[in-house]
Amino acid sequence: MAPQVTVDSINPKVIECQYAVRGEIVILAQKLQQEIQAKPEAYPFQEILYCNIGNPQSLGQKSITFFREVLALCDHPAILAKSETQALFSADSIERARKILDQIPGRATGAYSHSQGIKGLRDTIAAAIEARDGFPADPNDIFMTDGASPAVHMMMQLLIRSEKDGILCPIPQYPLYSASIALHGGSLVPYYLDEATGWVLEVSELKKQLQEAKSNGITVRALVVINPGNPTGQVLAEENQKAIVEFCKEEGLVLLADEVYQENVYVPEKKFHSFKKVARSMGYGEKDIHLVSFQSVSKGYYGECGKRGGYMEVTGFGADVREHIYKLASVNLCSNITGQILASLVMSPPKVGDKSYESYIAERDGILSSLARRAKTLEDAFNKLEGITCNKAEGAMYLFPRINLPKKAIKAAEEVKTAPDLFYCRRLLNETGIVFVPGSGFGQVPGTWHFRCTILPREEKIPAIVTRLTDFHKRFMDEFRD
Amino acid sequence: MAPQVTVDSINPKVIECQYAVRGEIVILAQKLQQEIQAKPEAYPFQEILYCNIGNPQSLGQKSITFFREVLALCDHPAILAKSETQALFSADSIERARKILDQIPGRATGAYSHSQGIKGLRDTIAAAIEARDGFPADPNDIFMTDGASPAVHMMMQLLIRSEKDGILCPIPQYPLYSASIALHGGSLVPYYLDEATGWVLEVSELKKQLQEAKSNGITVRALVVINPGNPTGQVLAEENQKAIVEFCKEEGLVLLADEVYQENVYVPEKKFHSFKKVARSMGYGEKDIHLVSFQSVSKGYYGECGKRGGYMEVTGFGADVREHIYKLASVNLCSNITGQILASLVMSPPKVGDKSYESYIAERDGILSSLARRAKTLEDAFNKLEGITCNKAEGAMYLFPRINLPKKAIKAAEEVKTAPDLFYCRRLLNETGIVFVPGSGFGQVPGTWHFRCTILPREEKIPAIVTRLTDFHKRFMDEFRD
Repeated sequence: MAPQVTVDSINPKVIECQYAVRGEIVILAQKLQQEIQAKPEAYPFQEILYCNIGNPQSLGQKSITFFREVLALCDHPAILAKSETQALFSADSIERARKILDQIPGRATGAYSHSQGIKGLRDTIAAAIEARDGFPADPNDIFMTDGASPAVHMMMQLLIRSEKDGILCPIPQYPLYSASIALHGGSLVPYYLDEATGWVLEVSELKKQLQEAKSNGITVRALVVINPGNPTGQVLAEENQKAIVEFCKEEGLVLLADEVYQENVYVPEKKFHSFKKVARSMGYGEKDIHLVSFQSVSKGYYGECGKRGGYMEVTGFGADVREHIYKLASVNLCSNITGQILASLVMSPPKVGDKSYESYIAERDGILSSLARRAKTLEDAFNKLEGITCNKAEGAMYLFPRINLPKKAIKAAEEVKTAPDLFYCRRLLNETGIVFVPGSGFGQVPGTWHFRCTILPREEKIPAIVTRLTDFHKRFMDEFRD
Repeated sequence: MAPQVTVDSINPKVIECQYAVRGEIVILAQKLQQEIQAKPEAYPFQEILYCNIGNPQSLGQKSITFFREVLALCDHPAILAKSETQALFSADSIERARKILDQIPGRATGAYSHSQGIKGLRDTIAAAIEARDGFPADPNDIFMTDGASPAVHMMMQLLIRSEKDGILCPIPQYPLYSASIALHGGSLVPYYLDEATGWVLEVSELKKQLQEAKSNGITVRALVVINPGNPTGQVLAEENQKAIVEFCKEEGLVLLADEVYQENVYVPEKKFHSFKKVARSMGYGEKDIHLVSFQSVSKGYYGECGKRGGYMEVTGFGADVREHIYKLASVNLCSNITGQILASLVMSPPKVGDKSYESYIAERDGILSSLARRAKTLEDAFNKLEGITCNKAEGAMYLFPRINLPKKAIKAAEEVKTAPDLFYCRRLLNETGIVFVPGSGFGQVPGTWHFRCTILPREEKIPAIVTRLTDFHKRFMDEFRD
């Protein structure tokens, strides 16, 4: 018999799942890059400028020295006792590595850990959450994961029973959520962020969409909030967060708080507040609200995407439900130990008085202040372009400008059976080498068009991006202006 | 409203999923360990002897020096150029780290990689597979994953559409398979390994179970084969593998080959053959058979469980199906880079002439020969016990002895509403501190009872385990003998 697995006989949920961040435009970019390598004069640009994905170190951002010192020492503890090590590594990285190794049963960094992660590292993380929020955190509530994505999948797997179960998600959203909901066979219940007011999350919109979902027979189980926002870059105000908590409490929803950009806030008038802190400050405890907070080593100023470290803090579930979450964690045994160690480090970096403190602060602030400048430069550049408006990136790593495409451009896109935003991004890539992700991958109000642009290219490349984009956009508008 | 998520309202597939390797017995063991730490005289033993899980480094197995040197250097490449590094690291580990860093775009070990893993590392792995098998391997067929488990989940997710889709699994099996099939809502179609002949996999049994599943309206999509076997330790003969390949080809099934114990073969009369090599040697190529091979850094002589490295080699699927596998990989962005590097290292360790070769071989052979001795000692010990028979561990890391429990013991177990094998294992743990996993977690012929015992405790502890087990078993039989 011929092999039986064809695209018509695989799981339709897999077919349905979309993941634009690594979709068509990125595949085209990789193709162009190979062509340029083979034949540098193939295109009117010499390099691909990746603005498509939140992957800072791929664009030259340096890792934080202290973190990498500790990781190296934990990978090869045999050198800890050697005198040469003193010359190669900072004194506090050696001390920290020793402390971490002491927290690992048998100092075995090559062993499976507890399914939730090494207890000592979870103690460190819980203490850091407590220091951040001013409210207690329990190491037994921490589930360490390979980046935040597996944690999100785990919660979706737990909550979604059928397509009748809905998850309230922002539109625009990070497509991990739509992909995960599709894979687990649930329904994404959209709520729209208000672009006109800087992507504000209106609780009235949540209520409206919840009612509409209910009237369609959907049981809404959870609300996803991404704060700071991806792809929208807004930072929620504390009062707004309180209203969101109140809404979840009233409706008995699980609040899934994507807080992976908690270190990425660029404007002085906004501050990151964890949803747990907000809920606790309102007097709501374990029995009042289901609350899950996701954190990752991939974002912040550290940007250690490749290390796949992260955790979720799970509160407000009964012991019996918790057992099932534990079981889901244990089916994959544990997350990678390097990522676990790094997660403890980003939550507990060098402190005042530590040998590495000054250099650590210089590295951290250098990255964050540069990100803030890049965000502002790109925002300003977008807002100068005909037909483009762009909200400020208060936080996170992205801008999500809106483009009012001329009717002629929309028609040209339709003629080649392409979404208009994809049409624009494809042209941009082919003519300039700049990689944006079309807004359709994130969701947008029907009839509006956007794209996502990261603020991550190296600062010295930003002027070239602005120039190339501006020139392209003018040509594009000259060709298609109504 | 009160929080709405209770155990009655979570995904029933999650409830159904079982994972005995980290189940009740292990939780009890952890409790006893804490009690002993608090009060050393609490039990008639001073330590818990974990024989429940294939986690070698947790029991004191040392990591391979060369591998850890390379990992440390890749974590902190800044030290590569320092003179002190020459004194701390072997020359070939420095050279290898440089080579690996050159294979990583931008030398960015903190960046997300290609969703399938870093291309240069996949080149290394493909070359190693080619050298192992004598048949070509394509780096584009390699999907690097955080250990083998996520790869197994990915294939189950792809293949299972509903409970009408079945996966043929050995009984006894590694419970990852039953857990993954349950989570993805499919049907496990059991085939029984023949204990009487040393856990032989009979193709007649496969055919019988396939027919029975078909007559129950199940579409069987894939066959799982674990070779060397977990928990059963048998190594398949090449002729047997050929018959299995022929069966999969005839029936159009995906052959899911769990080959994570490929380095763990302890008997001179058996040799590991990959299913891909067997299929290709029969003249079957890409168009003839769907074949997926799983490999991991967690097993072998390296036992780097905590690093979560692994890959699957995916062959025989059309380009359109492959695109969906790629999409599933990309939803989680990539596997951790440390694990990716380690996967390339275990497939391409030091070679004759390399500076580290001699010490590497000494470490490797020291571990493998000790594992072989431990397997034999434990096997012999089990076979001396009244009512226990135990097949040889030809490979892998486990023994799966059968225990003919007296009727009185079975009755006593029933009285406390406990499976008889769990009853035995719980008593054993409470009286001796030895942790076995009851056979019911792996599946067994109804009415037979087994347990799984790893061969991983340190060699110097094996005599104590044998003595304690023997004494316990005698007491147990004296109490319950019919």
